[in-house]
Amino acid sequence: MIAQLISIGNEITSGQTVDTNSAWLAQELAEFGVTCVRHQTIADELEPIRHAIDDAAGRSDLVIITGGLGPTPDDLTRQALADAMGVELLFHEPSLAHIEQYFALRKRHMHEGNRHQAYIPKGGDALHNERGTAPGIRAHLQNADIYCLPGVPSEMRDMFDVHVRPVLESESHGDATRIHVLHSIGMSESEIGERLKDMMRRDRNPTIGTSASELVISIRIVSHAESSVEAQRLLQADAAEIRDRLENTVFGEADETLESAVGRMLLDQRKTIATAESCTGGLIAKSLTDLPGSSAYFKQAFVTYSNESKTALLGVPEALITEHGAVSEPVARAMAENCRTRSGTDIALSATGIAGPTGGTPAKPIGLVYVGIASKNETVVKELRLGENITRAQVRGRTVKVLLNLLRLKLLKRERPDAD
Amino acid sequence: MIAQLISIGNEITSGQTVDTNSAWLAQELAEFGVTCVRHQTIADELEPIRHAIDDAAGRSDLVIITGGLGPTPDDLTRQALADAMGVELLFHEPSLAHIEQYFALRKRHMHEGNRHQAYIPKGGDALHNERGTAPGIRAHLQNADIYCLPGVPSEMRDMFDVHVRPVLESESHGDATRIHVLHSIGMSESEIGERLKDMMRRDRNPTIGTSASELVISIRIVSHAESSVEAQRLLQADAAEIRDRLENTVFGEADETLESAVGRMLLDQRKTIATAESCTGGLIAKSLTDLPGSSAYFKQAFVTYSNESKTALLGVPEALITEHGAVSEPVARAMAENCRTRSGTDIALSATGIAGPTGGTPAKPIGLVYVGIASKNETVVKELRLGENITRAQVRGRTVKVLLNLLRLKLLKRERPDAD
Repeated sequence: MIAQLISIGNEITSGQTVDTNSAWLAQELAEFGVTCVRHQTIADELEPIRHAIDDAAGRSDLVIITGGLGPTPDDLTRQALADAMGVELLFHEPSLAHIEQYFALRKRHMHEGNRHQAYIPKGGDALHNERGTAPGIRAHLQNADIYCLPGVPSEMRDMFDVHVRPVLESESHGDATRIHVLHSIGMSESEIGERLKDMMRRDRNPTIGTSASELVISIRIVSHAESSVEAQRLLQADAAEIRDRLENTVFGEADETLESAVGRMLLDQRKTIATAESCTGGLIAKSLTDLPGSSAYFKQAFVTYSNESKTALLGVPEALITEHGAVSEPVARAMAENCRTRSGTDIALSATGIAGPTGGTPAKPIGLVYVGIASKNETVVKELRLGENITRAQVRGRTVKVLLNLLRLKLLKRERPDAD
Repeated sequence: MIAQLISIGNEITSGQTVDTNSAWLAQELAEFGVTCVRHQTIADELEPIRHAIDDAAGRSDLVIITGGLGPTPDDLTRQALADAMGVELLFHEPSLAHIEQYFALRKRHMHEGNRHQAYIPKGGDALHNERGTAPGIRAHLQNADIYCLPGVPSEMRDMFDVHVRPVLESESHGDATRIHVLHSIGMSESEIGERLKDMMRRDRNPTIGTSASELVISIRIVSHAESSVEAQRLLQADAAEIRDRLENTVFGEADETLESAVGRMLLDQRKTIATAESCTGGLIAKSLTDLPGSSAYFKQAFVTYSNESKTALLGVPEALITEHGAVSEPVARAMAENCRTRSGTDIALSATGIAGPTGGTPAKPIGLVYVGIASKNETVVKELRLGENITRAQVRGRTVKVLLNLLRLKLLKRERPDAD
């Protein structure tokens, strides 16, 4: 089944409010095998709303409209739906009774505008709204079922659960969609595209798509089948195949983040960690402590932003800084090693670099960062060149991602206890 | 001028990602008097994208499409636009040269898929993308100007600034909408609503609206006039009036953040600062170093997550922690004072609290945080109760906001050099 969503309101088209209803509805619909192919957000204008409803109904089986059911003159969903259906609005007595009761119970004055909320397009049904004044509407247009729900997220979700979900449940037998997302880091989106080329064909089931967000590439698998067992089987087979093809770049799935994956590995391996940070200014420590329970592995951090603090807090020799500069391989190495011994942890991470937007030179450009990982047996320092055309926030954010991924790869090697 | 926005991608139609590009674009367009009447989000399907482009072009003067320009087979914007225009895709040699150079500079392998990114609909122009491989596209369809920009927000914003903004600027002469945003902290949205009640009438010019985001309330002023001088005058009069009514809660305007406002004050007053952090795990240091040039005032941070590290790094007496607990007024005080003396800075900040989601007790619930500010003359410690029904990220984020605001109010008192 194909669905389209329409959200109504100037506050959304103007950018003042971000529409979150559509994302929520799309995820709910997917559980019933209903694929959402378009969201539209329309300003509070009668003709554009009518057109959007008409266009959506002609191209899908289900249209859910949120918003525009309020009592003010700029609430136009009822009229626009009636116009799209070519019918008039009819007064619905039980809805008015509900609205009157709503105000009476709250000892509030009912405005004339609230009467308008009791009008329903001829041929449509009013849907009872337990939590607000505006009744929803169910109607039929072209080949599509149409639902109008309130725009307030809590009311909308409630109405969806009461009026839409049961219908979908009764209709969805024999159809099943399952969704799974894998997250990877360390391989470019185009390289992943090459490796999964045959699996990403448009006509294949499951369908597979990728999206990128600051070095993390997510791979989304959507399977369709006649039974949920079969859909799940297809999903798992593809997930296993993708993990195989992308090797150790896949670090997690669903809600998992690089930070939580690394945290879990530290916890499993009972390793403790500390950080010594210059250009990241505490962001590595912040990322490692984003997770509940991180005190089991994270002990402390030295944010040594000035050269003096690198010497005072971490014992990095002043001469080393003078000779090589604060942004250098030897300084990153000393920061990591001294942080580890001073913290008494199994592992220490360090980062020193040029975050920009100023301070870059031809020899040491913006985006040049040295990251270090010190453990009992070895210290590894890596030079990163993150590019000069990225923002300060990106230099810092990507430094953390790359460093945590290096740590992940290091921990991966020792994941079997007997290898320890 | 009427605009429509189209965002492309299964990750958005499926609800996995919330589209924030459209809200950003709508707000930017409003500054040029361009009204956004519809956003559409379309799945990665050729015909639906073609239809959406065609339908949008027929009903507006400007269409901005984001996403679907990547190198993989599910990136279909180029082809869909060509189909809507009824033309073929032509190979654009300079774009390929740019893509090849992009990979060469990064010493990365270029894949076959990246070649596809160099195809442009006949009659359209390639738009140079400084920060990525995908060129944008400018074209004309029906009566609308069409722009295709990347979906990655940072790249999209950059391309908008380079390729779209100058065109809008040159076209918007004689029209005058001006937007100004003030940011406040420390007064509730409803209190602000009361104080600005008469100014927030819907039929007034300028219009004034508020929005809240994690303790910061932003006040948006939009003025319309026949000349930009007049629109600007209306805007400034209202901004001054609002600053007056909201007293010292207004900390900045436009792109200014609480962090940048505090950073500017530290710089102006030539004060240096360090932090001692437990529950915030480095987030205060990270926030203070988000800004370019922060090394002028920020020196170092101690992230003392474990009790041992509070004693070892900051000299907080073990007995003090045993007697009062790590989350207590005396420990926050000792952390701030010892951090200041050990760092040799003018000011030191501290935070210790229960970030959750576990670890709360009736006496010390989740959201209980002690924050400290130590300076030469005094140490102030404040107990915060941020609420138990908020997330770990919210506890940490709000702690930083409240603490930085306390620091701002402290610095405000001494802003005149003669008061120093």
